[in-house]
Amino acid sequence: MIVLKSFEIKTKPFCDVINITNQVQNTLKESGLHSGIVNVHVAGSTASISTTEFEPGLVQHDIKDFLENLLPYDAHYRHHQTWGDHNGSGHLRSFLLKTSQTFPFHNTTLILGTWQQIIFIECDEKPRNRKIYCQIIGE
Amino acid sequence: MIVLKSFEIKTKPFCDVINITNQVQNTLKESGLHSGIVNVHVAGSTASISTTEFEPGLVQHDIKDFLENLLPYDAHYRHHQTWGDHNGSGHLRSFLLKTSQTFPFHNTTLILGTWQQIIFIECDEKPRNRKIYCQIIGE
Amino acid sequence: MIVLKSFEIKTKPFCDVINITNQVQNTLKESGLHSGIVNVHVAGSTASISTTEFEPGLVQHDIKDFLENLLPYDAHYRHHQTWGDHNGSGHLRSFLLKTSQTFPFHNTTLILGTWQQIIFIECDEKPRNRKIYCQIIGE
Repeated sequence: MIVLKSFEIKTKPFCDVINITNQVQNTLKESGLHSGIVNVHVAGSTASISTTEFEPGLVQHDIKDFLENLLPYDAHYRHHQTWGDHNGSGHLRSFLLKTSQTFPFHNTTLILGTWQQIIFIECDEKPRNRKIYCQIIGE
Repeated sequence: MIVLKSFEIKTKPFCDVINITNQVQNTLKESGLHSGIVNVHVAGSTASISTTEFEPGLVQHDIKDFLENLLPYDAHYRHHQTWGDHNGSGHLRSFLLKTSQTFPFHNTTLILGTWQQIIFIECDEKPRNRKIYCQIIGE
Repeated sequence: MIVLKSFEIKTKPFCDVINITNQVQNTLKESGLHSGIVNVHVAGSTASISTTEFEPGLVQHDIKDFLENLLPYDAHYRHHQTWGDHNGSGHLRSFLLKTSQTFPFHNTTLILGTWQQIIFIECDEKPRNRKIYCQIIGE
């Protein structure tokens, strides 16, 4: 059985890290499927999906600092010359971290660690409305 | 329903970034499946799969510069001592970026952002013939 | 058909890289499924799954050195202030490398490159007992 669900979130610019675990879990409940996988995917090229312990030190500081050190927003990127925009860092962050991750579930419940949450990372320099797809395959 | 497809590409050495969106999309059409996921995978340890906006600034400059800064091809890697070869950087790039990504599709069409393309990244230091597998699960 | 399997491993702290290819392959044999995908996932926020050529230069030196240079264990992370622990680097490594990867199989055999092995990366600063889930979807 295959069930496609989606939900929308509003984001803040510059590395907004958003806990989407509950929304993903809700799509599983709505699907009625017991066991399988869910492919969590953002259709875009300046955003990412991963997991972390969702606590302020990591979410508001460490993840931002790590990515800013690796791919500073204010650096020069050749991408800027193509369109005259300024989100080269956001594109490279999305390329590196990827726009999807696939998770197992059982008993209609995501299999995650005690401290593990599914996160959306806004990599763009503008606030965005983002649509996140959950393609659920199970029985 | 499960359908395994594959296609081959010729690559150039040192961070050749190739748009494989059309080839992946074609495997979906050939499968005849309407909705599901496709696991895009390169069997190898010096190549990667991800997505990006496929424009020259990112593809020919920013991605190359970012990875070269992070994992220079000409640095010393202990891997070189094992086999006497010189592709340590390529192995680490593949380890970091991973050899696969899984994408959702619906109406026999990949769900991607307007500017989002699926890319193959050649991380090795030699031109290669690469076989890319698309394991399609859907209905 | 969907089959959930798991296995446990004991890890050493600080970037222990463990070859889990045989264990993943064994779950496929036990499932009896011929073709499909396997989602290999560690439920936790300080560990990762990827692939590499499993030889001592990469596994014991290059991967460790690369990650230590990028995210040193002894640096200051704001995560440490939240709980008074010291595994901020491990959390960021897991966030970057991700806790899962999905692989195709056919003829009940993983589709991997000649030199490609599936690896578990212990990112935490303590030895751990880890449970790795293999959610297998196939026919």
